[in-house]
Amino acid sequence: MIKVYGDIYSGNCYKIKLLLSFLNIPYTWKHMDILAGETRTPEFLQKNSNGKIPLVELDSGEYLAESNAILNYFAEGSPYLPNDRLLRAQVLQWQFYEQYSHEPCIAVARYIQRYLGMPEHRRADYDSAQAGGITALQLMNTHLATHQFFVGERLTIADISLYAYTHVAEEGGFDLAPYNFISDWFARIEAHPNYIAMEG
Amino acid sequence: MIKVYGDIYSGNCYKIKLLLSFLNIPYTWKHMDILAGETRTPEFLQKNSNGKIPLVELDSGEYLAESNAILNYFAEGSPYLPNDRLLRAQVLQWQFYEQYSHEPCIAVARYIQRYLGMPEHRRADYDSAQAGGITALQLMNTHLATHQFFVGERLTIADISLYAYTHVAEEGGFDLAPYNFISDWFARIEAHPNYIAMEG
Repeated sequence: MIKVYGDIYSGNCYKIKLLLSFLNIPYTWKHMDILAGETRTPEFLQKNSNGKIPLVELDSGEYLAESNAILNYFAEGSPYLPNDRLLRAQVLQWQFYEQYSHEPCIAVARYIQRYLGMPEHRRADYDSAQAGGITALQLMNTHLATHQFFVGERLTIADISLYAYTHVAEEGGFDLAPYNFISDWFARIEAHPNYIAMEG
Repeated sequence: MIKVYGDIYSGNCYKIKLLLSFLNIPYTWKHMDILAGETRTPEFLQKNSNGKIPLVELDSGEYLAESNAILNYFAEGSPYLPNDRLLRAQVLQWQFYEQYSHEPCIAVARYIQRYLGMPEHRRADYDSAQAGGITALQLMNTHLATHQFFVGERLTIADISLYAYTHVAEEGGFDLAPYNFISDWFARIEAHPNYIAMEG
Protein backbone atom coordinates (compact mmCIF):
# COMPACT_ATOMS: atom_id res chain seq x y z
CA MET A 1 0.00 0.00 0.00
CA ILE A 2 1.10 3.55 -0.75
CA LYS A 3 2.77 5.30 2.17
CA VAL A 4 2.62 9.08 2.56
CA TYR A 5 5.21 10.79 4.78
CA GLY A 6 3.53 14.01 5.87
CA ASP A 7 2.29 16.44 8.47
CA ILE A 8 -1.48 17.01 8.63
CA TYR A 9 -1.07 20.76 9.16
CA SER A 10 1.06 21.15 6.02
CA GLY A 11 -0.86 22.35 2.96
CA ASN A 12 1.62 20.64 0.66
CA CYS A 13 0.89 17.33 2.39
CA TYR A 14 -2.86 18.01 2.43
CA LYS A 15 -2.84 18.24 -1.38
CA ILE A 16 -1.92 14.55 -1.52
CA LYS A 17 -4.48 13.58 1.12
CA LEU A 18 -7.25 15.42 -0.75
CA LEU A 19 -6.45 13.93 -4.17
CA LEU A 20 -6.12 10.38 -2.80
CA SER A 21 -9.53 10.83 -1.17
CA PHE A 22 -11.06 12.10 -4.45
CA LEU A 23 -9.56 9.05 -6.21
CA ASN A 24 -10.51 6.55 -3.46
CA ILE A 25 -6.90 5.37 -3.28
CA PRO A 26 -6.04 3.80 0.10
CA TYR A 27 -2.77 4.74 1.80
CA THR A 28 -1.01 4.76 5.12
CA TRP A 29 0.14 8.03 6.67
CA LYS A 30 3.46 8.38 8.49
CA HIS A 31 3.52 11.58 10.54
CA MET A 32 6.77 13.51 10.32
CA ASP A 33 7.61 16.17 12.89
CA ILE A 34 9.44 18.88 10.92
CA LEU A 35 10.30 21.01 13.95
CA ALA A 36 11.85 17.99 15.66
CA GLY A 37 14.10 17.48 12.63
CA GLU A 38 12.53 14.22 11.47
CA THR A 39 12.89 15.21 7.80
CA ARG A 40 16.62 15.86 8.24
CA THR A 41 17.73 12.49 9.65
CA PRO A 42 20.17 10.43 7.57
CA GLU A 43 17.46 7.79 7.21
CA PHE A 44 14.94 10.25 5.75
CA LEU A 45 17.53 11.98 3.55
CA GLN A 46 18.17 8.59 1.93
CA LYS A 47 14.49 8.58 0.89
CA ASN A 48 14.45 12.24 -0.19
CA SER A 49 17.80 14.00 -0.48
CA ASN A 50 15.98 17.35 -0.34
CA GLY A 51 14.70 16.54 3.19
CA LYS A 52 11.13 17.67 2.58
CA ILE A 53 7.61 16.36 2.91
CA PRO A 54 5.30 15.27 1.43
CA LEU A 55 7.12 12.18 0.23
CA VAL A 56 5.32 9.16 -1.19
CA GLU A 57 6.58 5.58 -1.14
CA LEU A 58 4.98 3.73 -4.04
CA ASP A 59 4.08 0.05 -4.08
CA SER A 60 7.26 -0.55 -6.13
CA GLY A 61 9.34 0.80 -3.22
CA GLU A 62 10.29 3.90 -5.20
CA TYR A 63 9.94 7.37 -3.70
CA LEU A 64 8.42 10.48 -5.21
CA ALA A 65 8.79 13.98 -3.74
CA GLU A 66 7.40 17.48 -4.48
CA SER A 67 3.68 17.80 -3.80
CA ASN A 68 2.72 18.89 -7.32
CA ALA A 69 4.75 16.14 -9.00
CA ILE A 70 2.98 13.62 -6.75
CA LEU A 71 -0.43 15.07 -7.70
CA ASN A 72 0.41 14.70 -11.39
CA TYR A 73 1.48 11.10 -10.86
CA PHE A 74 -1.72 10.02 -9.14
CA ALA A 75 -4.09 12.15 -11.25
CA GLU A 76 -2.85 10.71 -14.56
CA GLY A 77 -5.79 9.13 -16.39
CA SER A 78 -8.34 10.57 -13.94
CA PRO A 79 -10.76 13.50 -14.41
CA TYR A 80 -8.45 15.65 -12.29
CA LEU A 81 -5.78 15.88 -15.03
CA PRO A 82 -7.01 16.63 -18.57
CA ASN A 83 -5.66 14.75 -21.60
CA ASP A 84 -5.54 17.82 -23.83
CA ARG A 85 -1.97 19.06 -24.26
CA LEU A 86 -2.70 22.76 -23.72
CA LEU A 87 -4.96 22.12 -20.71
CA ARG A 88 -2.26 19.92 -19.14
CA ALA A 89 0.26 22.73 -19.63
CA GLN A 90 -2.19 25.18 -18.05
CA VAL A 91 -2.53 22.89 -15.02
CA LEU A 92 1.26 22.95 -14.70
CA GLN A 93 1.33 26.71 -15.25
CA TRP A 94 -0.90 27.20 -12.19
CA GLN A 95 1.03 24.63 -10.16
CA PHE A 96 4.36 26.33 -10.88
CA TYR A 97 2.71 29.66 -10.13
CA GLU A 98 1.58 28.18 -6.82
CA GLN A 99 5.05 26.97 -5.84
CA TYR A 100 6.92 30.08 -6.94
CA SER A 101 4.58 33.03 -6.32
CA HIS A 102 1.90 31.83 -3.88
CA GLU A 103 3.30 29.23 -1.47
CA PRO A 104 6.47 31.23 -0.57
CA CYS A 105 4.15 34.04 0.61
CA ILE A 106 0.95 32.52 1.97
CA ALA A 107 2.38 29.25 3.31
CA VAL A 108 5.50 30.91 4.66
CA ALA A 109 3.47 33.58 6.53
CA ARG A 110 1.29 30.81 7.98
CA TYR A 111 4.36 28.79 8.94
CA ILE A 112 5.89 31.77 10.78
CA GLN A 113 2.59 32.55 12.53
CA ARG A 114 1.24 29.06 13.22
CA TYR A 115 4.28 26.78 13.50
CA LEU A 116 6.89 29.16 14.85
CA GLY A 117 4.61 31.44 16.91
CA MET A 118 5.77 34.63 15.20
CA PRO A 119 9.34 35.07 16.50
CA GLU A 120 10.70 38.61 16.19
CA HIS A 121 13.64 37.57 13.96
CA ARG A 122 11.18 36.36 11.30
CA ARG A 123 9.11 39.56 11.37
CA ALA A 124 10.67 41.04 8.19
CA ASP A 125 10.04 37.76 6.30
CA TYR A 126 6.46 37.75 7.57
CA ASP A 127 5.81 41.33 6.46
CA SER A 128 7.30 40.73 3.03
CA ALA A 129 5.17 37.56 2.68
CA GLN A 130 2.03 39.61 3.41
CA ALA A 131 2.56 41.84 0.37
CA GLY A 132 3.18 38.92 -1.98
CA GLY A 133 0.29 36.94 -0.51
CA ILE A 134 -2.19 39.76 -1.13
CA THR A 135 -0.99 40.01 -4.73
CA ALA A 136 -1.57 36.25 -5.11
CA LEU A 137 -5.07 36.41 -3.59
CA GLN A 138 -6.01 39.32 -5.88
CA LEU A 139 -4.73 37.46 -8.94
CA MET A 140 -6.69 34.32 -8.01
CA ASN A 141 -9.85 36.29 -7.25
CA THR A 142 -9.67 38.03 -10.63
CA HIS A 143 -9.24 34.72 -12.45
CA LEU A 144 -12.13 33.17 -10.54
CA ALA A 145 -14.41 36.12 -11.37
CA THR A 146 -14.79 34.61 -14.85
CA HIS A 147 -13.96 30.94 -14.26
CA GLN A 148 -15.52 28.19 -12.16
CA PHE A 149 -12.16 26.45 -11.72
CA PHE A 150 -8.59 27.31 -12.69
CA VAL A 151 -8.35 25.16 -15.83
CA GLY A 152 -10.91 23.86 -18.31
CA GLU A 153 -13.96 24.75 -16.17
CA ARG A 154 -13.69 21.63 -14.08
CA LEU A 155 -11.95 20.62 -10.88
CA THR A 156 -8.34 19.62 -11.57
CA ILE A 157 -5.17 19.20 -9.56
CA ALA A 158 -4.47 22.91 -10.28
CA ASP A 159 -7.39 23.70 -7.96
CA ILE A 160 -6.18 21.22 -5.34
CA SER A 161 -2.71 22.84 -5.41
CA LEU A 162 -4.06 26.35 -4.95
CA TYR A 163 -6.79 25.39 -2.48
CA ALA A 164 -4.39 23.78 -0.01
CA TYR A 165 -2.84 26.94 1.43
CA THR A 166 -5.42 29.48 0.27
CA HIS A 167 -8.22 28.02 2.38
CA VAL A 168 -6.11 28.40 5.53
CA ALA A 169 -4.57 31.75 4.56
CA GLU A 170 -6.21 33.39 7.57
CA GLU A 171 -3.79 31.39 9.75
CA GLY A 172 -1.06 33.42 8.02
CA GLY A 173 -2.75 36.73 8.78
CA PHE A 174 -4.60 37.15 5.47
CA ASP A 175 -8.19 38.42 5.54
CA LEU A 176 -10.13 36.42 2.94
CA ALA A 177 -13.35 38.46 3.27
CA PRO A 178 -12.62 40.76 0.28
CA TYR A 179 -12.24 37.82 -2.10
CA ASN A 180 -15.78 36.69 -2.93
CA PHE A 181 -14.85 34.67 -5.97
CA ILE A 182 -12.29 32.72 -3.97
CA SER A 183 -14.95 31.91 -1.34
CA ASP A 184 -17.34 30.69 -4.03
CA TRP A 185 -14.59 28.50 -5.47
CA PHE A 186 -13.86 27.07 -1.99
CA ALA A 187 -17.53 26.04 -1.82
CA ARG A 188 -17.35 24.29 -5.22
CA ILE A 189 -14.33 22.25 -4.10
CA GLU A 190 -15.81 21.49 -0.67
CA ALA A 191 -18.99 20.21 -2.35
CA HIS A 192 -17.08 17.22 -3.77
CA PRO A 193 -18.59 14.09 -2.14
CA ASN A 194 -15.11 12.83 -1.19
CA TYR A 195 -13.94 16.14 0.25
CA ILE A 196 -12.08 15.85 3.53
CA ALA A 197 -10.93 18.69 5.76
CA MET A 198 -7.22 19.34 6.27
CA GLU A 199 -7.23 18.09 9.85
CA GLY A 200 -10.00 15.55 9.25
CA MET B 1 4.76 31.36 -35.71
CA ILE B 2 5.34 30.94 -31.98
CA LYS B 3 6.36 34.13 -30.21
CA VAL B 4 8.52 34.04 -27.07
CA TYR B 5 8.51 37.08 -24.78
CA GLY B 6 11.83 36.91 -22.98
CA ASP B 7 15.17 38.33 -21.92
CA ILE B 8 18.29 36.58 -23.23
CA TYR B 9 20.09 36.89 -19.87
CA SER B 10 17.25 35.19 -17.99
CA GLY B 11 17.81 31.50 -17.30
CA ASN B 12 14.06 30.88 -17.20
CA CYS B 13 13.79 32.31 -20.73
CA TYR B 14 16.88 30.43 -21.91
CA LYS B 15 15.20 27.13 -21.00
CA ILE B 16 12.64 27.78 -23.74
CA LYS B 17 15.26 28.89 -26.26
CA LEU B 18 17.34 25.75 -25.63
CA LEU B 19 14.41 23.32 -25.94
CA LEU B 20 13.05 24.97 -29.09
CA SER B 21 16.55 24.66 -30.59
CA PHE B 22 16.75 20.96 -29.63
CA LEU B 23 13.34 20.44 -31.25
CA ASN B 24 14.08 22.57 -34.34
CA ILE B 25 10.93 24.63 -33.71
CA PRO B 26 11.12 28.11 -35.26
CA TYR B 27 9.97 31.11 -33.23
CA THR B 28 10.24 34.87 -32.97
CA TRP B 29 11.74 36.46 -29.87
CA LYS B 30 10.33 39.64 -28.35
CA HIS B 31 12.83 41.16 -25.91
CA MET B 32 11.28 42.41 -22.68
CA ASP B 33 13.20 44.81 -20.45
CA ILE B 34 12.29 43.77 -16.90
CA LEU B 35 14.14 46.62 -15.19
CA ALA B 36 12.30 49.15 -17.40
CA GLY B 37 8.97 47.68 -16.23
CA GLU B 38 7.96 46.19 -19.58
CA THR B 39 6.48 43.10 -17.89
CA ARG B 40 4.27 45.26 -15.66
CA THR B 41 2.45 47.33 -18.31
CA PRO B 42 -1.34 46.94 -18.60
CA GLU B 43 -0.82 45.51 -22.10
CA PHE B 44 1.56 42.79 -20.88
CA LEU B 45 -0.51 42.00 -17.78
CA GLN B 46 -3.40 41.22 -20.12
CA LYS B 47 -1.22 38.51 -21.65
CA ASN B 48 0.13 37.23 -18.31
CA SER B 49 -1.59 38.48 -15.17
CA ASN B 50 1.46 37.40 -13.16
CA GLY B 51 3.65 39.88 -15.08
CA LYS B 52 6.54 37.51 -15.66
CA ILE B 53 8.62 36.18 -18.52
CA PRO B 54 9.06 33.84 -20.28
CA LEU B 55 5.64 33.97 -21.87
CA VAL B 56 4.80 32.12 -25.07
CA GLU B 57 2.14 33.10 -27.58
CA LEU B 58 1.06 29.98 -29.42
CA ASP B 59 -0.12 29.82 -33.03
CA SER B 60 -3.69 29.68 -31.69
CA GLY B 61 -3.19 33.10 -30.07
CA GLU B 62 -3.29 31.57 -26.59
CA TYR B 63 -0.62 32.39 -24.01
CA LEU B 64 1.33 30.06 -21.76
CA ALA B 65 3.45 31.18 -18.81
CA GLU B 66 5.87 29.57 -16.33
CA SER B 67 9.07 28.27 -17.90
CA ASN B 68 8.66 24.67 -16.79
CA ALA B 69 5.03 24.45 -17.92
CA ILE B 70 6.14 25.76 -21.33
CA LEU B 71 8.90 23.12 -21.48
CA ASN B 72 6.37 20.37 -20.76
CA TYR B 73 4.06 21.69 -23.48
CA PHE B 74 6.69 21.68 -26.21
CA ALA B 75 8.48 18.50 -25.10
CA GLU B 76 5.31 16.37 -25.18
CA GLY B 77 5.83 13.49 -27.61
CA SER B 78 9.57 14.21 -27.98
CA PRO B 79 12.56 12.34 -26.51
CA TYR B 80 12.91 15.15 -23.92
CA LEU B 81 9.79 14.06 -22.00
CA PRO B 82 9.40 10.33 -21.30
CA ASN B 83 6.07 8.54 -21.75
CA ASP B 84 6.44 6.40 -18.63
CA ARG B 85 4.25 7.67 -15.80
CA LEU B 86 6.86 7.46 -13.04
CA LEU B 87 9.61 8.98 -15.19
CA ARG B 88 7.30 11.87 -16.12
CA ALA B 89 6.59 12.46 -12.44
CA GLN B 90 10.34 12.39 -11.73
CA VAL B 91 10.88 15.04 -14.41
CA LEU B 92 8.28 17.19 -12.65
CA GLN B 93 9.83 16.42 -9.25
CA TRP B 94 13.14 17.92 -10.42
CA GLN B 95 11.41 20.86 -12.09
CA PHE B 96 9.46 21.73 -8.94
CA TYR B 97 12.67 21.28 -6.98
CA GLU B 98 14.33 23.71 -9.38
CA GLN B 99 11.64 26.37 -8.97
CA TYR B 100 11.29 26.07 -5.20
CA SER B 101 14.75 25.19 -3.85
CA HIS B 102 17.27 26.08 -6.58
CA GLU B 103 16.08 29.09 -8.61
CA PRO B 104 15.19 31.26 -5.57
CA CYS B 105 18.82 30.87 -4.43
CA ILE B 106 21.04 30.60 -7.48
CA ALA B 107 19.02 32.76 -9.89
CA VAL B 108 18.19 35.33 -7.22
CA ALA B 109 21.87 35.70 -6.19
CA ARG B 110 22.77 36.12 -9.87
CA TYR B 111 19.98 38.67 -10.35
CA ILE B 112 21.20 40.74 -7.39
CA GLN B 113 24.82 40.56 -8.58
CA ARG B 114 24.45 40.81 -12.37
CA TYR B 115 21.21 42.74 -12.95
CA LEU B 116 21.09 44.98 -9.91
CA GLY B 117 24.85 45.43 -9.39
CA MET B 118 24.78 44.25 -5.76
CA PRO B 119 22.99 47.10 -3.95
CA GLU B 120 23.58 47.19 -0.19
CA HIS B 121 19.86 46.82 0.68
CA ARG B 122 19.81 43.40 -1.05
CA ARG B 123 22.95 42.16 0.75
CA ALA B 124 21.06 40.05 3.30
CA ASP B 125 19.01 38.38 0.53
CA TYR B 126 22.22 37.73 -1.39
CA ASP B 127 23.95 36.13 1.60
CA SER B 128 20.95 33.96 2.39
CA ALA B 129 20.77 32.86 -1.27
CA GLN B 130 24.42 31.77 -1.09
CA ALA B 131 23.71 29.20 1.61
CA GLY B 132 20.70 27.73 -0.20
CA GLY B 133 22.53 27.74 -3.52
CA ILE B 134 25.45 25.74 -2.13
CA THR B 135 23.01 23.18 -0.72
CA ALA B 136 21.40 22.90 -4.17
CA LEU B 137 24.74 22.48 -5.95
CA GLN B 138 25.81 19.78 -3.46
CA LEU B 139 22.52 17.92 -3.92
CA MET B 140 22.83 18.05 -7.72
CA ASN B 141 26.47 16.96 -7.62
CA THR B 142 25.63 13.99 -5.43
CA HIS B 143 22.81 12.91 -7.77
CA LEU B 144 25.07 13.26 -10.81
CA ALA B 145 27.80 11.17 -9.17
CA THR B 146 25.72 8.10 -10.04
CA HIS B 147 23.56 9.35 -12.94
CA GLN B 148 24.35 10.64 -16.42
CA PHE B 149 21.23 12.82 -16.42
CA PHE B 150 18.59 13.67 -13.84
CA VAL B 151 15.87 11.27 -15.02
CA GLY B 152 15.94 7.98 -16.91
CA GLU B 153 19.60 8.24 -17.93
CA ARG B 154 18.87 10.47 -20.89
CA LEU B 155 18.59 14.20 -21.53
CA THR B 156 15.13 15.46 -20.57
CA ILE B 157 13.55 18.81 -19.81
CA ALA B 158 14.52 18.19 -16.15
CA ASP B 159 18.14 18.68 -17.24
CA ILE B 160 17.26 21.77 -19.28
CA SER B 161 15.50 23.29 -16.25
CA LEU B 162 18.43 22.69 -13.92
CA TYR B 163 21.11 23.57 -16.47
CA ALA B 164 19.71 27.05 -17.19
CA TYR B 165 20.81 28.77 -13.99
CA THR B 166 23.42 26.25 -12.80
CA HIS B 167 25.75 26.83 -15.75
CA VAL B 168 25.85 30.58 -14.98
CA ALA B 169 25.92 30.20 -11.19
CA GLU B 170 29.35 31.84 -11.08
CA GLU B 171 27.61 35.10 -12.06
CA GLY B 172 25.80 34.78 -8.73
CA GLY B 173 29.01 34.31 -6.78
CA PHE B 174 29.04 30.48 -6.70
CA ASP B 175 32.30 28.67 -7.28
CA LEU B 176 31.52 25.63 -9.46
CA ALA B 177 35.04 24.15 -9.25
CA PRO B 178 34.24 21.72 -6.41
CA TYR B 179 31.40 20.09 -8.34
CA ASN B 180 33.06 17.75 -10.84
CA PHE B 181 29.96 15.76 -11.59
CA ILE B 182 28.06 18.94 -12.45
CA SER B 183 30.85 19.97 -14.85
CA ASP B 184 30.74 16.56 -16.55
CA TRP B 185 26.95 16.88 -16.91
CA PHE B 186 27.35 20.37 -18.43
CA ALA B 187 29.61 18.80 -21.06
CA ARG B 188 27.04 16.11 -21.88
CA ILE B 189 24.33 18.74 -22.44
CA GLU B 190 26.65 21.04 -24.40
CA ALA B 191 27.56 18.13 -26.70
CA HIS B 192 24.03 18.12 -28.15
CA PRO B 193 24.35 19.06 -31.86
CA ASN B 194 21.62 21.71 -31.47
CA TYR B 195 23.05 23.24 -28.30
CA ILE B 196 23.09 27.03 -28.28
CA ALA B 197 24.69 29.26 -25.67
CA MET B 198 22.53 31.48 -23.47
CA GLU B 199 23.59 34.67 -25.19
CA GLY B 200 24.12 33.03 -28.58
